[in-house]
Amino acid sequence: MALLSELATEIVIPVCAVIGIAFSFVQFVLVSRVKVTPERHAPPQSVNNNKNGYGEYLIEEEDGINDQNVVAKCAEIQNAISEGATSFLFTEYQYVGVFMVAFAILIFLFLGSVKGFSLKNQPCTYDAEKLCKPALATAVFSTVSFVLGALTSVLSGYLGMKIATYANARTTLEARKGVGKAFITAFRSGAVMGFLLAANGLLVLYITINLFKLYYGDDWEGLFEAITGYGLGGSSMALFGRVGGGIYTKAADVGADLVGKVERNIPEDDPRNPAVIADNVGDNVGDIAGMGSDLFGSYAESSCAALVVASISSFGINHDFTAMCYPLLISSMGILVCLITTLFATDFFEIKAVKEIEPALKKQLIISTVLMTVGIAIVSWVALPSSFTIYNFGVQKVVKNWELFLCVGVGLWAGLVIGFVTEYYTSNAYSPVQDVADSCRTGAATNVIFGLALGYKSVIIPIFAIAVSIFVSFSFAAMYGIAVAALGMLSTIATGLAIDAYGPISDNAGGIAEMAGMSHRIRERTDALDAAGNTTAAIGKGFAIGSAALVSLALFGAFVSRAAISTVDVLTPKVFIGLIVGAMLPYWFSAMTMKSVGSAALKMVEEVRRQFNTIPGLMEGLAKPDYATCVKISTDASIKEMIPPGALVMLTPLIVGIFFGVETLSGVLAGSLVSGVQIAISASNTGGAWDNAKKYIEAGASEHARSLGPKGSDAHKAAVIGDTIGDPLKDTSGPSLNILIKLMAVESLVFAPFFATHGGLLFKIF
Amino acid sequence: MALLSELATEIVIPVCAVIGIAFSFVQFVLVSRVKVTPERHAPPQSVNNNKNGYGEYLIEEEDGINDQNVVAKCAEIQNAISEGATSFLFTEYQYVGVFMVAFAILIFLFLGSVKGFSLKNQPCTYDAEKLCKPALATAVFSTVSFVLGALTSVLSGYLGMKIATYANARTTLEARKGVGKAFITAFRSGAVMGFLLAANGLLVLYITINLFKLYYGDDWEGLFEAITGYGLGGSSMALFGRVGGGIYTKAADVGADLVGKVERNIPEDDPRNPAVIADNVGDNVGDIAGMGSDLFGSYAESSCAALVVASISSFGINHDFTAMCYPLLISSMGILVCLITTLFATDFFEIKAVKEIEPALKKQLIISTVLMTVGIAIVSWVALPSSFTIYNFGVQKVVKNWELFLCVGVGLWAGLVIGFVTEYYTSNAYSPVQDVADSCRTGAATNVIFGLALGYKSVIIPIFAIAVSIFVSFSFAAMYGIAVAALGMLSTIATGLAIDAYGPISDNAGGIAEMAGMSHRIRERTDALDAAGNTTAAIGKGFAIGSAALVSLALFGAFVSRAAISTVDVLTPKVFIGLIVGAMLPYWFSAMTMKSVGSAALKMVEEVRRQFNTIPGLMEGLAKPDYATCVKISTDASIKEMIPPGALVMLTPLIVGIFFGVETLSGVLAGSLVSGVQIAISASNTGGAWDNAKKYIEAGASEHARSLGPKGSDAHKAAVIGDTIGDPLKDTSGPSLNILIKLMAVESLVFAPFFATHGGLLFKIF
Repeated sequence: MALLSELATEIVIPVCAVIGIAFSFVQFVLVSRVKVTPERHAPPQSVNNNKNGYGEYLIEEEDGINDQNVVAKCAEIQNAISEGATSFLFTEYQYVGVFMVAFAILIFLFLGSVKGFSLKNQPCTYDAEKLCKPALATAVFSTVSFVLGALTSVLSGYLGMKIATYANARTTLEARKGVGKAFITAFRSGAVMGFLLAANGLLVLYITINLFKLYYGDDWEGLFEAITGYGLGGSSMALFGRVGGGIYTKAADVGADLVGKVERNIPEDDPRNPAVIADNVGDNVGDIAGMGSDLFGSYAESSCAALVVASISSFGINHDFTAMCYPLLISSMGILVCLITTLFATDFFEIKAVKEIEPALKKQLIISTVLMTVGIAIVSWVALPSSFTIYNFGVQKVVKNWELFLCVGVGLWAGLVIGFVTEYYTSNAYSPVQDVADSCRTGAATNVIFGLALGYKSVIIPIFAIAVSIFVSFSFAAMYGIAVAALGMLSTIATGLAIDAYGPISDNAGGIAEMAGMSHRIRERTDALDAAGNTTAAIGKGFAIGSAALVSLALFGAFVSRAAISTVDVLTPKVFIGLIVGAMLPYWFSAMTMKSVGSAALKMVEEVRRQFNTIPGLMEGLAKPDYATCVKISTDASIKEMIPPGALVMLTPLIVGIFFGVETLSGVLAGSLVSGVQIAISASNTGGAWDNAKKYIEAGASEHARSLGPKGSDAHKAAVIGDTIGDPLKDTSGPSLNILIKLMAVESLVFAPFFATHGGLLFKIF
Repeated sequence: MALLSELATEIVIPVCAVIGIAFSFVQFVLVSRVKVTPERHAPPQSVNNNKNGYGEYLIEEEDGINDQNVVAKCAEIQNAISEGATSFLFTEYQYVGVFMVAFAILIFLFLGSVKGFSLKNQPCTYDAEKLCKPALATAVFSTVSFVLGALTSVLSGYLGMKIATYANARTTLEARKGVGKAFITAFRSGAVMGFLLAANGLLVLYITINLFKLYYGDDWEGLFEAITGYGLGGSSMALFGRVGGGIYTKAADVGADLVGKVERNIPEDDPRNPAVIADNVGDNVGDIAGMGSDLFGSYAESSCAALVVASISSFGINHDFTAMCYPLLISSMGILVCLITTLFATDFFEIKAVKEIEPALKKQLIISTVLMTVGIAIVSWVALPSSFTIYNFGVQKVVKNWELFLCVGVGLWAGLVIGFVTEYYTSNAYSPVQDVADSCRTGAATNVIFGLALGYKSVIIPIFAIAVSIFVSFSFAAMYGIAVAALGMLSTIATGLAIDAYGPISDNAGGIAEMAGMSHRIRERTDALDAAGNTTAAIGKGFAIGSAALVSLALFGAFVSRAAISTVDVLTPKVFIGLIVGAMLPYWFSAMTMKSVGSAALKMVEEVRRQFNTIPGLMEGLAKPDYATCVKISTDASIKEMIPPGALVMLTPLIVGIFFGVETLSGVLAGSLVSGVQIAISASNTGGAWDNAKKYIEAGASEHARSLGPKGSDAHKAAVIGDTIGDPLKDTSGPSLNILIKLMAVESLVFAPFFATHGGLLFKIF
């Protein structure tokens, strides 16, 4: 048995979760010290700064620090953004809520019907000699955990958005004091979100398991099957959040840029642009709330995948609770490791210049990975027996604890590799993005060709990294190995979310600076933060995609076991047609989401043009634009347009499972996985590279960059076109794709008993 | 046994091939009647026209028919293009020749080493009781058939190019008489190429089989294994042809457009543009020679795949030669059917107006498919026993002749569906392209977003069509069914090639008209032909991709049988890592080819700019540009840049097979197949749609189109950017991808005995 006792496990997990929440609260308090209400006593704040010894190290001078009008204006803009985002999320949740209720009923009916809603206990699936709880109980508890997962996801997204809209204006105001201050505020706010989400997800899962245990008792197989509903709920919600938010933000962004930057030649986020509030709202509902839901979903699913496989392995069979909770203990350790890592960015070191921002963020990745490696070793040593067995498609495979350590470790380090490669391909400090920027010399067409080629190329190493992790973890510990490899990659999720959320917060901060009419230098500082943010956003997406690939493979494996398929042989017609159609689904999905963004952007462009043409004095800054109409266009478009792609993903496993059966569904899952990963990585890197190629030209930090610029030059115009094309790729279709592959897998897993019993109608008829 | 005797089969096949060649010659004679040497007696030609009763039906007036200067100029330009193309092909063949010789040696060494170069007969793979020819014989004959395949491919490409460069100026000259005349000339020339290639491929294969039979005698297993080298040779050559030609043509095209159309605002193909000759040469070496080699490769491979499976089925075991030759008989019937179909376009009906062009080409597809259905029924009835067995991964499966008819038929009709869908998405007569054109209102960014979405969407139905064909043919007759389904799709290859080659010929004709300074109306006519040509080119690519998917699946199945793998289980680590890495390969490949086009285009742009800036009087038309330097840039770039992507494709199966073994290689083949098909279809349709969206605006045929135009408007500029981006997608990376998936499969098949014996080193060591 494990070194750690069951009681200790029961204590350690919630304690770590609470520590995470407490740390998040501390960070929040630190952020909240920045006041956005105009103060009478500005000087004391400045004295305070000098006390801490910060002021003298800053290279930049403090700028407009005493202008209280600016503070009032910031507060006003912040309010507008916050209200817009809140109102959108509520509208979105209402619509999705209806869908989720319907789906919850479907889960109950489908799973209940497996044994004809019988209340009698039944022989267990994997051990026919024992009696397990009735299928109806699985139906009820799966439905409950589905709803819980969805609610936790909503909460994650909502809290993330609230924090981000709380932090954006504060970052702007801190930017007056220098880039270092602004960085810390943005990063701390990201950390608030990261720790809150990680801890929250862990805590809810832990409580749910313990509550379900009251009913299930020793039937862990049934218990953890029911828990998979948690992952499904989290991911379904995340899908709508990502797609809806992604369409919202990019419709506004593209619309605002096309008229503002291209036609009217006014700067980004200029307050005269009617779509500017919608654009900034979009960053919060798309990049923040959507991403929060997404990573929470990944976390929930990889935990569920690991748990469900463990329940039919020796951990579950011997009722070794500590070993069973290994995935949760890894996450608990992750919170502690990330906590220490965060201090490196906020307290141990300090940012003094623009060029230090990216290395600081990169250091976060390295530190958290190194520390976490030690953390995993400790957890593997104390929480696992030295040798145990893992269920591997019908046979029990003997695994040592150090082998499992390697599984988690390989996932963790693969994440770091993906992070570095993503940074290399999307940061304008390296040659790939500089080449793309250079290709703008000959216009938008070469920019797009080079950008697409860059995105395709950036797929190579991440795929090898994923392949190596799959091979190692699969060989050591079958599907359990893959699930914990995914958990390894996600174990530093708090840090990942912190550096990811930092990007949109900086973006918003820049927008507020522009709208509040603050000096050009403030904007330059937030732009520098934002350029690093584009890279970290791409890194975050890289993590999300890499972990999604591992998670969905683990879920796929669990599905295959639960559906009682022995092999998924490519060379059978049923599987192969699934494979090729599955590989097509990401394209279908991307076609829908990109077209949605395009159409919504066209509407936005018309509205913005209309306002410029009909509101007298708007261009001169004498009249105020009608922001509300643009917000409404984005809201309506995203609510309407998120349904078809969402339905495609949610209904495909149901339709395939019911009509074509579990073999074809296996093919679909494998196909969409291997094809979706590639498009997702290339889309998000292409978009990130275009965005930073544009920023590279704008910043003009090198001889080469200056030869392409300045803003408004032909090369810059070409770069803006690339950036606009990249918007839906990197923020709508790309990041939604990893939800697509995970969601289809977890949904198949939840419905597996139903498909195995009643599925494959078409083949049964003919 | 079959109704058709062995002797009859031995006669029918070469007779059909000879009929095809004769028909091709007749068409050639008809084309050659258009004289490009200035004549003294122009009036008789015109009288001749009236005699045939053509003139009076033509809506367009005859235009500049008596201007002998124009004829002389056309001849001069034609010569320049022809010389450029010939010289490029020779250079290309020299470089590729070295590679091919090296590869031929590799084939001999690897296959010979399977049994240690032993000269002794050995037990057969599938029937251990019988003795088969030694592995060394397979090595020798595989090498010979590899070289033969490569040479036939070279011949196909070269002849196609010669015909196209012979026809282009003739089409221009006929365009003076009206669009109908020009159409017939271009189409007839396409038919020359189509019939010559189809007949030639059939004849060489037929002769090779008969020659090999002299040695192999009754060992059909060995005979048809050796024949697979023919497919490998054809496809290897095709790969370099497509990639090299694709880079050549698009570097020139993009380079010419970027400076000419975008910067200097001069029309396409303006003789002042230094890259214009390179551009027109490119059409011939890329779209014509490359495509000819490509479709020949598909044809050779699907025949080989069918033959190798048949050799271990009852046809081979019972030595039923007629049934064995079923694939060749299908192709023979295809030549006769296409012959009749061609008459519908050239003799039975007549094009009188621009709007009749596309329907006429569409009719070709429909007529050939309907007739071929009857043809297949006849062949299946006379050439097959009513019941027989087909090898299906270790067991013999009983198949009826009508089931095999359905297999071929489903492939044929799936081809038609793909053709129609492609037409719908790429022709500017329908809403998808019109929507893309409309999105140009708001600039290049929305154009690109809509175009990409269109390409993604256009994948859906073709994939379902392919999936249905796979399911039907796989269920009826396993891998043999899939191979003959591919043959079904390719059975109308002569017509397919004719309508495909027609496009680049019309494009060239337009270029010659522009360069020869012919009237605006001539250019409009050739533009109308070319717009239809973009659609037919996309249809041709659709056929090529669809058949490639089927062919490579069949080859993959044959490889699995020959490598003695029992199942390809996705849920084993070895296979899964292959699957995900395989799905990545098309991205890697596309990244290389697109970057190559981009870089070469940048060099071209610099050279063109340099000439415009340094040659006095060039812009005013007083001085001649230096065409040769541009031709050299394209040649050098394509020769240099075709090696890495070519090596990636050629070496991947070798590296994977040797180091990771046949299971991982199976995964790679399946992954690259299901992922590559999607990218290939979306890339070629996106590119086609952008090109035709631009043409839609330029032609201004509707109220809507006129509101976007005219040439030079902002919307038109945005459309030109889209068109330029689409160039490498549709003509370089897209069409090369189908060769990638086929080639890796056929290469694996050829090397299967070697991999099975010596492969998987890494796993053997660890």
